[in-house]
Amino acid sequence: MCRFAAYLGPEIQLDHFLLEPGHSLVEQSWQPREMQTAILNADGFGVGWYNGDHPASYRNVMPIWADPNLEPLSRSFSRSLWIAHVRSATPGFGTGLANTQPFMDDELIFVHNGFVTDFPYNVRQQARRWFTPAIEASIHGNVDSEYLFAILRQLLAEDGERDLADAIRLLHGLLLEWGAQHALLSLALSDGRRVVALRHALGAECPSLYFTTDDESFPEAQLLASEPLTDTGLWQAVPPHHLLILDPDEPPQLTAL
Amino acid sequence: MCRFAAYLGPEIQLDHFLLEPGHSLVEQSWQPREMQTAILNADGFGVGWYNGDHPASYRNVMPIWADPNLEPLSRSFSRSLWIAHVRSATPGFGTGLANTQPFMDDELIFVHNGFVTDFPYNVRQQARRWFTPAIEASIHGNVDSEYLFAILRQLLAEDGERDLADAIRLLHGLLLEWGAQHALLSLALSDGRRVVALRHALGAECPSLYFTTDDESFPEAQLLASEPLTDTGLWQAVPPHHLLILDPDEPPQLTAL
Amino acid sequence: MCRFAAYLGPEIQLDHFLLEPGHSLVEQSWQPREMQTAILNADGFGVGWYNGDHPASYRNVMPIWADPNLEPLSRSFSRSLWIAHVRSATPGFGTGLANTQPFMDDELIFVHNGFVTDFPYNVRQQARRWFTPAIEASIHGNVDSEYLFAILRQLLAEDGERDLADAIRLLHGLLLEWGAQHALLSLALSDGRRVVALRHALGAECPSLYFTTDDESFPEAQLLASEPLTDTGLWQAVPPHHLLILDPDEPPQLTAL
Amino acid sequence: MCRFAAYLGPEIQLDHFLLEPGHSLVEQSWQPREMQTAILNADGFGVGWYNGDHPASYRNVMPIWADPNLEPLSRSFSRSLWIAHVRSATPGFGTGLANTQPFMDDELIFVHNGFVTDFPYNVRQQARRWFTPAIEASIHGNVDSEYLFAILRQLLAEDGERDLADAIRLLHGLLLEWGAQHALLSLALSDGRRVVALRHALGAECPSLYFTTDDESFPEAQLLASEPLTDTGLWQAVPPHHLLILDPDEPPQLTAL
Repeated sequence: MCRFAAYLGPEIQLDHFLLEPGHSLVEQSWQPREMQTAILNADGFGVGWYNGDHPASYRNVMPIWADPNLEPLSRSFSRSLWIAHVRSATPGFGTGLANTQPFMDDELIFVHNGFVTDFPYNVRQQARRWFTPAIEASIHGNVDSEYLFAILRQLLAEDGERDLADAIRLLHGLLLEWGAQHALLSLALSDGRRVVALRHALGAECPSLYFTTDDESFPEAQLLASEPLTDTGLWQAVPPHHLLILDPDEPPQLTAL
Repeated sequence: MCRFAAYLGPEIQLDHFLLEPGHSLVEQSWQPREMQTAILNADGFGVGWYNGDHPASYRNVMPIWADPNLEPLSRSFSRSLWIAHVRSATPGFGTGLANTQPFMDDELIFVHNGFVTDFPYNVRQQARRWFTPAIEASIHGNVDSEYLFAILRQLLAEDGERDLADAIRLLHGLLLEWGAQHALLSLALSDGRRVVALRHALGAECPSLYFTTDDESFPEAQLLASEPLTDTGLWQAVPPHHLLILDPDEPPQLTAL
Repeated sequence: MCRFAAYLGPEIQLDHFLLEPGHSLVEQSWQPREMQTAILNADGFGVGWYNGDHPASYRNVMPIWADPNLEPLSRSFSRSLWIAHVRSATPGFGTGLANTQPFMDDELIFVHNGFVTDFPYNVRQQARRWFTPAIEASIHGNVDSEYLFAILRQLLAEDGERDLADAIRLLHGLLLEWGAQHALLSLALSDGRRVVALRHALGAECPSLYFTTDDESFPEAQLLASEPLTDTGLWQAVPPHHLLILDPDEPPQLTAL
Repeated sequence: MCRFAAYLGPEIQLDHFLLEPGHSLVEQSWQPREMQTAILNADGFGVGWYNGDHPASYRNVMPIWADPNLEPLSRSFSRSLWIAHVRSATPGFGTGLANTQPFMDDELIFVHNGFVTDFPYNVRQQARRWFTPAIEASIHGNVDSEYLFAILRQLLAEDGERDLADAIRLLHGLLLEWGAQHALLSLALSDGRRVVALRHALGAECPSLYFTTDDESFPEAQLLASEPLTDTGLWQAVPPHHLLILDPDEPPQLTAL
């Protein structure tokens, strides 16, 4: 279990998104409110953004509150899209940079809150046989989240007509086919323009996921987060088993899986 | 605020003391029960022991639960004296190895749970002027705890008749003289043979401190800890404003300050 | 490229093996003499030993000279078998604990100096398809060295008659079969009783590897190392394409691959 | 001994200054050419800049080449002033964030290459007695470089007429007064507008220091560095015992101490 959040809107400094909100990811790391398992998200953190078309990230294995670089960095540049993650390591997948989110390739940024039970014994093996050499060669760690991202990338690569939402819709079918019986799948994927999120689970209750377009702290912006970043009451739950699409030119769009 | 514990008795492996107890310092790091301030002790940890007459320590700025080296190390050697500490960084004294306990010199090991309010503006300046060059030169960080240890060392160095308990008894008088009005002073000091602990505070409620000689998990041993390591009900509170002396040849001795 | 060393003999403290020799692995980390590529081994280090039958290790992503815990730890316990490694990260395989050696499972400890060129595109994919689920599930990082160890483990698991040397003899055949055309393969494998080492390469010059039984700093011991730990002139080169077997009850045994 | 560099000119991305030059600080960390002592600068690194009037920094205790965050960060924002440092820890002053440069307060950024011999026994003690409470309270570590910065800040604070160059001119007099007999003093200090550097030593040869205004890689910029960042031959040595003032509206100004 982890917590994540994303921002899409007018350019803002990172500190405004990541550090200042009343129930920021920093607070969610040491005092989360809606965790199904675990009570902390202190096993590393990361934040992703785009430099032009190129994803970039800053990640650290320390708890988010303990990194003295984060505050000065977060006051140093602004972006119109931010994606951040605080990690609670699933037992068996140790603390380490290779397992710290967000994950990215040359175009996409990905975060995941949840896990696939027995992942090394079902999905990971099957997925490895299914991956193309290029996708397989790009995997750095062993954690389920990185593999979910690799599956999505291959789904996108093998059919140029697919968009982010299409790929996400196909994900759980593959997991089922590969033997996953229990999985928590709250996730978000971005191509630098849109952020597409999923609130879903297999054989379990869905992890929490919220969004807002009305938070006065973030004018004209669309945000999503595992837990509302503020206590304004203006955040809505994404319904279970739904996709949420944030697009700078459209209102948020919810569709059932 | 922090949590610490010490063991004095027959030789045992570190894991038996540090990792296995039901309410071990690992659990006290993410789920302490009696903290006055803060809710975690995740800003580094350390453990000290003796190699012959020489103090040694292992310290890490990560949360104690996140260190993959700790489990194999803790199964690798046994000692008759262990002192361990999990840290909750006081605001203003950042995470970093120089501020991570236990502290030691060539003879002594020291741990502290608490803080001296406004320490940089009262005690630290006065203490620096009072220190001998050798003591001053031995200070590596800026945290109040390291200075308390330096004060105790100078008290011991300047009068060869003083023992550990004498030095600890003199500590709070110096703090008052140097302007400290509010301080939490739960601490322990060892010379490799005895462990002398203090439960004290200035202008505040004393931090918790317990001891036991009857815990069946630790036969024939004497232990002290910020919170009982087990739920056996066989741990007793050290009375406020009292010294506790653990000596391998004597029963625990409690004396009022 | 990396540097490694192993000790088999009467029990000694780790510092005597790891820190004290004139051309210790610490010196080999910042001033190696026989590296084919790279000029430092400063991308992490580790040391392995046995607690009874169980392998244990201490690993850190910092340069070996920068770890303040290493000196006190290395004076704290003695063993009759030590295996240590200082890493020079191959480009593409980042610094991180999952890629830091030695590697181990429940019985074996393994170190590797070298690399398999184009590994993610040839050997890794083929090996993943060949691995049993249990072996595959045990892999934590993505570096070639960890996979070489996994291949050796599967070779041992699939035929109970095989010993360490048999498995090592089969390794390069599999690499060739899976398309490796260029590889440096200086490695050592231990089961807690013996240490079996290989000095080999495919399509390249073999990395350096030495051994000694006569070094007066280590009475009655057998050692091997990428570079001699001392300048006594009593270290011999392992001939290229040879296996070296160190057994506590036998003199060192060299056999051609 | 360490290496540092500073850039003053049109806004550029950090990677252009820090990572791309042929003999960048990254190369100077593992292959410096003009070090008097030590052969590496691998004990941490840092870079400083200004957010408006406020200094900011990014620092890490790892070798500069091993930080996976540096490349994406360095492509994420541009500034007209950069100051960077790679550290070679002086024995006795351990690796740790508190000892990692650049140092800063609310207005100034400072880097130092060199050391004051016997610093804990002469300058540090005298300086502590001389510091105002506010300056003393702001010191986090124990390394000579941080104290040099504190001395400069107090020299500036106690006389509002003094500018950066005046303070630097007074520094070595204080060091002599406090008993320093041997010191290497290559340093740079900025207020966000100008960079003032010193190439000096007491009882020793001056550490190297260069500057340029003609390097084609950095049009219209002024740079200084411990070793030229490029092999263009367009860098000049700062003469020993000289101050160098870089001002955006003036040509570089050299004056004897």
